[in-house]
Amino acid sequence: MTPEQFDTWARQCLVDVEQALSAWVPSEAPAGLGEAMRYGVLDGGKRLRPLLVLAACEALGGQREAALRAAVAVELIHAYSLIHDDMPCMDNDVLRRGKPTVHVQFGEAQAMLAGDAMQALAFEVLTPDEALVPLALQARLVGLLARAAGQAGMAGGQAIDLAATGRPLLEEQLQDMHRRKTGALLQASVLMGAACGTPDARAWQALSDYGAAIGLAFQVVDDILDVTQASETLGKTAGKDLDANKPTYVSVLGLEHARLRADALHAQAQAALRSSGLADTVALAMLADKVVDRDS
Amino acid sequence: MTPEQFDTWARQCLVDVEQALSAWVPSEAPAGLGEAMRYGVLDGGKRLRPLLVLAACEALGGQREAALRAAVAVELIHAYSLIHDDMPCMDNDVLRRGKPTVHVQFGEAQAMLAGDAMQALAFEVLTPDEALVPLALQARLVGLLARAAGQAGMAGGQAIDLAATGRPLLEEQLQDMHRRKTGALLQASVLMGAACGTPDARAWQALSDYGAAIGLAFQVVDDILDVTQASETLGKTAGKDLDANKPTYVSVLGLEHARLRADALHAQAQAALRSSGLADTVALAMLADKVVDRDS
Repeated sequence: MTPEQFDTWARQCLVDVEQALSAWVPSEAPAGLGEAMRYGVLDGGKRLRPLLVLAACEALGGQREAALRAAVAVELIHAYSLIHDDMPCMDNDVLRRGKPTVHVQFGEAQAMLAGDAMQALAFEVLTPDEALVPLALQARLVGLLARAAGQAGMAGGQAIDLAATGRPLLEEQLQDMHRRKTGALLQASVLMGAACGTPDARAWQALSDYGAAIGLAFQVVDDILDVTQASETLGKTAGKDLDANKPTYVSVLGLEHARLRADALHAQAQAALRSSGLADTVALAMLADKVVDRDS
Repeated sequence: MTPEQFDTWARQCLVDVEQALSAWVPSEAPAGLGEAMRYGVLDGGKRLRPLLVLAACEALGGQREAALRAAVAVELIHAYSLIHDDMPCMDNDVLRRGKPTVHVQFGEAQAMLAGDAMQALAFEVLTPDEALVPLALQARLVGLLARAAGQAGMAGGQAIDLAATGRPLLEEQLQDMHRRKTGALLQASVLMGAACGTPDARAWQALSDYGAAIGLAFQVVDDILDVTQASETLGKTAGKDLDANKPTYVSVLGLEHARLRADALHAQAQAALRSSGLADTVALAMLADKVVDRDS
């Protein structure tokens, strides 16, 4: 793949992911639940995690059906976490992806249930008939996603975030929080894509390092955008971390050092790709660029 | 197994399940999250679902390690659903298993996160190293559990429940709600246990029918107990469905007809076991008795 081909490839991936999400997030779920689930995940978001899954699979020449399911599953986990995170008992946010948040639109109870059902659906999507995805690969993908979503990963990071509001954190504590809260799922996206192929130990380690670096870079950039961009650009409430007195990379390192940190992590990610021994990592390299060089 | 041996068997199962829960629900999860998770699932509950998993596995001579993991996973899903269901935006209940509910004890945000992390943990427990449970069986267990927990099962039933408050339901609608809300997970417990062995099509169908019958019987009896028992006996707030103006089997059928319905479902469950072709279904038969003949 050349850098010029990347855009075409990414556009086609986004079409495939959107179609799969629309097909697999059921409109017929009872009592408005399906409507809330679809509202929470369709037509929005950068789909960075699905693109990482598909790019890693592509780099390994892996199984596309399995990777598409992994891409949808990880996006469902991400989208459910945003729904729960936006609720009044958490961040109490009313704007997401430029639309009213799910609990504003459908009520708190339905928002909580929609999130719960989306987490279950993620694991359902990963366990189709074995004619579609070999059972052993299904189990590996579930294991990677469950560990990234749970107490050692995303949910644990959110608990630290919750406890940290209004308290200063050391840089290592901030990093630990973000490695769990955001980094674990981004890294798992890369590894789930890799698991759809047959990576050797060297490629697996390199992709793990790449995923860890961009996972953290993503959050550093998020913290920078939170103070430098307007709400309209972000599609969500800007400056909210500052308002909530939450520790961020900007509050701990300052804006300039946060930018340097993002650049250093970007360089780490690219170095990991070069060490992978894989022939074509253009898509992964371009995605690393996009993580750091974005305005929303 | 004789009926006399059942009690000894069940006691040992409960010890095993409690030890496994205590070992696998991590006290070291960050920022108090582990504490909330353990509070929500340890030292309480009848553990009916784990016993169903283990009894079905026993009837098939299946793999015990896999069944113990399935037992813990299904209890984690059940416990997380109670935590979320008790929250102010849902049932707003303050008492569960004789203790303050998780959100009363730890706050709403931590309760929501603990539930979210417990759902992820369920799928983590089901996907250990393949030396412990074959990967193909892991994938089958995840598939059964995810479908029972999601929009077609438990979460969907809760959405119907939410929408039904204060509105009369036809008996078929009530049954549909409960087959999803409570029945799906109880039936999945039986089928997960069965999947740990190698059931033929006849045994699988019989156990599926058995699971469906006791799943619905459980809810009918729950509705009866809600109006006939005191809160102290139940360990949760009695009469709350009545107070919340929720449709129940008692409000739709009347108390006497609800009792007859429970007896009929119990008979269906026992008939299914007799048709299974399995040599030893004593434990499953005794559990069906306990579902119907209980006071809390």
